[in-house]
Amino acid sequence: MKIDYKKELETAARNMILVHEPRVLIRLIVRMLVQKVKIKHAGILLYDKNKDSYVLMVSGGHAGFRVPAGFARMDLDNPLIRFFREHRAKKIFGDGALTYDALKKKLKNNAKVSSKALLKKVLYQMEIFQAVACIPSYFRDELMAVVLLGKKKNGHCFAGEEIDFFVALALDMAMAIRNAHLFRDLETELEKKYRLFIHTVVSLAAAIEAKDRYTRGHTERVTNLSLELAKKIGRKDKEARSSKFLEHLNIAGLLHDIGKIGIPEFILNKNGSLTAAERKKMEEHPLLGSTILQPIDEIEDAILGVKYHHEKFDGTGYPEGLKGQQIPFIAAIISVADAFDAMTTDRPYRKGLDKKEAIKEIRQASGRQFDPRVVTAFVELCQEGKV
Amino acid sequence: MKIDYKKELETAARNMILVHEPRVLIRLIVRMLVQKVKIKHAGILLYDKNKDSYVLMVSGGHAGFRVPAGFARMDLDNPLIRFFREHRAKKIFGDGALTYDALKKKLKNNAKVSSKALLKKVLYQMEIFQAVACIPSYFRDELMAVVLLGKKKNGHCFAGEEIDFFVALALDMAMAIRNAHLFRDLETELEKKYRLFIHTVVSLAAAIEAKDRYTRGHTERVTNLSLELAKKIGRKDKEARSSKFLEHLNIAGLLHDIGKIGIPEFILNKNGSLTAAERKKMEEHPLLGSTILQPIDEIEDAILGVKYHHEKFDGTGYPEGLKGQQIPFIAAIISVADAFDAMTTDRPYRKGLDKKEAIKEIRQASGRQFDPRVVTAFVELCQEGKV
Repeated sequence: MKIDYKKELETAARNMILVHEPRVLIRLIVRMLVQKVKIKHAGILLYDKNKDSYVLMVSGGHAGFRVPAGFARMDLDNPLIRFFREHRAKKIFGDGALTYDALKKKLKNNAKVSSKALLKKVLYQMEIFQAVACIPSYFRDELMAVVLLGKKKNGHCFAGEEIDFFVALALDMAMAIRNAHLFRDLETELEKKYRLFIHTVVSLAAAIEAKDRYTRGHTERVTNLSLELAKKIGRKDKEARSSKFLEHLNIAGLLHDIGKIGIPEFILNKNGSLTAAERKKMEEHPLLGSTILQPIDEIEDAILGVKYHHEKFDGTGYPEGLKGQQIPFIAAIISVADAFDAMTTDRPYRKGLDKKEAIKEIRQASGRQFDPRVVTAFVELCQEGKV
Repeated sequence: MKIDYKKELETAARNMILVHEPRVLIRLIVRMLVQKVKIKHAGILLYDKNKDSYVLMVSGGHAGFRVPAGFARMDLDNPLIRFFREHRAKKIFGDGALTYDALKKKLKNNAKVSSKALLKKVLYQMEIFQAVACIPSYFRDELMAVVLLGKKKNGHCFAGEEIDFFVALALDMAMAIRNAHLFRDLETELEKKYRLFIHTVVSLAAAIEAKDRYTRGHTERVTNLSLELAKKIGRKDKEARSSKFLEHLNIAGLLHDIGKIGIPEFILNKNGSLTAAERKKMEEHPLLGSTILQPIDEIEDAILGVKYHHEKFDGTGYPEGLKGQQIPFIAAIISVADAFDAMTTDRPYRKGLDKKEAIKEIRQASGRQFDPRVVTAFVELCQEGKV
């Protein structure tokens, strides 16, 4: 007897291990079973670690499962789950799988079965799901999932060979689920490590900012506005909307004033305008910031934002007097956000401008102090009321 | 005809995807082939991205491969590699695999084969490796590996069914290799992110330390000595040698003085001893450090080291006057390393103690200022000349 869907299912099983989201994986398998094996409906109970229970994923198939309320999730004490977790299919039927017919026969023969009560409950469960066969999926001894198979569309029973094949498939499935879990764990870990880095940067940036008592909240506001600007520009510009660019911009925003750690407190906190010498010292902060961060080679692009955020479009800025497109775009964005925030913040020796005036000043400085591309985006954000 | 090793190889193939080191994976497969299929020897050419070539992994097997010098790695222009990269087995023989007999026959029949020159070179390659069959392993269209099979120990040729089975196995292998690569990439990424975090901490800690001009290098020395102490203690203490503890200790060491960022510069850099009020201010730094770091909940244990590194074993320290075992062990370790480094460093108003004297002072303060467990380890390190 030829199993004509075998080859297709084998190929599919092989590809399963590249699906790293268990739920997606399960949905694919259910759909495949219904389409290729031509059964009326199929379902898979997938173990969910967080809920410590088995969650049902069904395919409508031909007739569709009618899943009674409360059955979409099964606790560990559900008879069907217990049956397979305790490896009873193997112990009682000498087989990895369980068919409705074999179970019915066992109960009918009235043979002395120690677990008759459990078997009756299992039968009832199978009837609820209109399942003619249940295939457990184990990783080592752990029950990862249970495949529930409805009748074939042509009305035939599954041949022994077919059941054997499903058992093999369930084994592949278990490995794929396990693999997916390992992947997910690793990805979670990766996310955690990145958050750790960002939290650290935020904390330390905040601590450093705290020394400069007139600019509390400045770092956060500049970072947020910079990201908004990049997203706006990103609608037309591929580079600006790339996640890598946004990531570096975020870091650069948080760290743009880190160099102020090297500026004496009496200058940072001076109650009035700075002397020429003091101003010169103050203007060292972008270069100082890039020197501090330079050993962190992973954030090279972000460092450009720190180093050049006081350059001006017409070449009159510092530290290098870069002009126009020579200025890294990441720095050009921070420059606008930084200037806007500085203008609108009160200082002991002057009151901050109101928003309208600040926006006007920035528009006027387009092409002189600021990159016109960024100013355009800034004006659009203002018009949308997002500034 | 029954293939009696089939089941075992299938199980092995299923387990392959949990091996995430391609070379280990390949070695397992080669060994398995030789043992289960009972062939004289087997080898696998595995693609190496970094070297852009195929590296040979062999099993001695019964007779052993004699790998001629220069054949342990094959470039992309090697005839055998070209043959499979260009999917010639399928094109010329209509088969996924290539057997020595089929190749010989094709050449003997003298049929018009466009690539006769290439086929002759392939034949020569197979002879060098004493391979009777070559099975390519593709992921999508990409050649991941080539399996080289020697003769069976019983002298028989491989049956067509056997070759088919090897082709299926090679497909599983390709998926497993691909999966292993994805894993390795993710793990590399994870390592990178962690290094990013550590580099950031080191940079920022160094920047902050730079403000305190009398303690340059202090942070690094304290961190290194703390780690040495933990390793020494870890020989008897499970907790102290755990990688988690060492990780947190490393971070705590780097950040233990981070709170000094909140201490006015004139106190940090004062040329003489501090007044009572100044000392009180200075003593705020551990608590201030823990406040700065508190939002980084991933390093909770490290923060304990920062917060309590000025507690004393007899309860006379700050900020909370904790006593004995109440003091987190991570802090007790940093406390000794910090004190030793402070004692032996010159200050403008006093010269540092020489090592011997400092060691003596620390021994005398065991059980009063310092945790005796740490002092014991410290003394041992000194005796070994590691301090």
